[in-house]
Amino acid sequence: MRYFKLTLEYDGANFSGWQFQPGQRTVQGHLQEKLERIFKTKTNCIASGRTDSGVHALGQVVHFKGETSMKVSQIQRALNAFLDKDVVVLKVQEVDKDFHAQYSVKNKTYRYTILNRKYPSALSYKRASFYPHELTISLMKKAAKLIKGKHDFKCFQAASEASKRKNTVRTISALNIVKEGDLIHISITSNGFLYKMVRNIVGTLLAVGSKQIPVSLVSKLLKSKNRKLSPPTAPPDGLYLVAVRY
Amino acid sequence: MRYFKLTLEYDGANFSGWQFQPGQRTVQGHLQEKLERIFKTKTNCIASGRTDSGVHALGQVVHFKGETSMKVSQIQRALNAFLDKDVVVLKVQEVDKDFHAQYSVKNKTYRYTILNRKYPSALSYKRASFYPHELTISLMKKAAKLIKGKHDFKCFQAASEASKRKNTVRTISALNIVKEGDLIHISITSNGFLYKMVRNIVGTLLAVGSKQIPVSLVSKLLKSKNRKLSPPTAPPDGLYLVAVRY
Repeated sequence: MRYFKLTLEYDGANFSGWQFQPGQRTVQGHLQEKLERIFKTKTNCIASGRTDSGVHALGQVVHFKGETSMKVSQIQRALNAFLDKDVVVLKVQEVDKDFHAQYSVKNKTYRYTILNRKYPSALSYKRASFYPHELTISLMKKAAKLIKGKHDFKCFQAASEASKRKNTVRTISALNIVKEGDLIHISITSNGFLYKMVRNIVGTLLAVGSKQIPVSLVSKLLKSKNRKLSPPTAPPDGLYLVAVRY
Repeated sequence: MRYFKLTLEYDGANFSGWQFQPGQRTVQGHLQEKLERIFKTKTNCIASGRTDSGVHALGQVVHFKGETSMKVSQIQRALNAFLDKDVVVLKVQEVDKDFHAQYSVKNKTYRYTILNRKYPSALSYKRASFYPHELTISLMKKAAKLIKGKHDFKCFQAASEASKRKNTVRTISALNIVKEGDLIHISITSNGFLYKMVRNIVGTLLAVGSKQIPVSLVSKLLKSKNRKLSPPTAPPDGLYLVAVRY
């Protein structure tokens, strides 16, 4: 038996997210179908984490095991020949039996891209989140400073998950906001992300930037540990899983 | 009667080009359908030039006339509300009766983007032209120097047009090749473009960069005025009409 690590890029627009669901087009389902063609047996893939419908990946990481005499470069070429054009295998590496795409993660980086102008963009449709209201970047950066660091991020965890996960303390080691023309890129690196944490943080940064809430409320939200007090979740369109580090 | 100039962005992937064709989804057809809804009468649009199926626009310019009491900002908002998400009106301006989107053009800029690496990209699919073979940029830049300037560009005009157009002399005022990671951007500014001229120039630059033909052949191709001697046309995926100047 051999153990493999795949690095994947995908356009999430036409997928119902990562996770296999019968009758739905998901990245996991599509990838496993093609792996089965190559390995001639059912193959289960584990990702670094699920991504939701509409969320993109520049460097999702996946592990699986299989028996084959193919070189890793041959596996990459065969997969890219079989996969639809909206998923691409960037790298195939052989790893130790111990490697686990989810449990071995040291940290991950997500990027959220906002198109901030009065009219939308044809070429950024489903690639950036369109936000036509005025944003004050300096306020968003102040709020980001309060969010960065080690905190209990329960207020940014999807309410549906509230009962499932006991430990909601995570460390955000980097939270950068960069304006590039009409685009605003928010990059977040953390040792772990709660479900919908990035989109909930972005929702709060947008509420601060558009002056719907004051910066000072952000510390109170974190202390409250209450999702219901926090601003709404930002849409998935602008979200990219950029990199996973081990 | 009032006269209007529109600036448009579109994702060409799901359009059969600019030009109206019955039963096909074209940018002109789609735009005219929505203008008819707003102006309550058939409206004919003239673009700076047609773009082929799959070709994108960051700043296509179009003119049309119509009777309305709406402000230009209202026309823009109404059109963007009616148009599909892959076409966006960036600007609406009121112009003189004399303004003609095609005949008044001073110059235009196109950009061609090549993804040059061994495996494709999910997020650049249909946005950049995938070219997996090694390219020597310095050779492409030498060839570009020979193409820049005032020449008879008949060898880069689609063979199908050969009999239609008498004057095939144009002036390329800028031809820049920029490498940005795995992407190569080729920008061309000219006072006029023959049909498929950009894609034919790019095809020749790729033949030079991949050492299929020597740089010195480029001058001979120009002198030959013979399309059949020139390398094949590059695919439409990576082509963007960037800007039109008047």
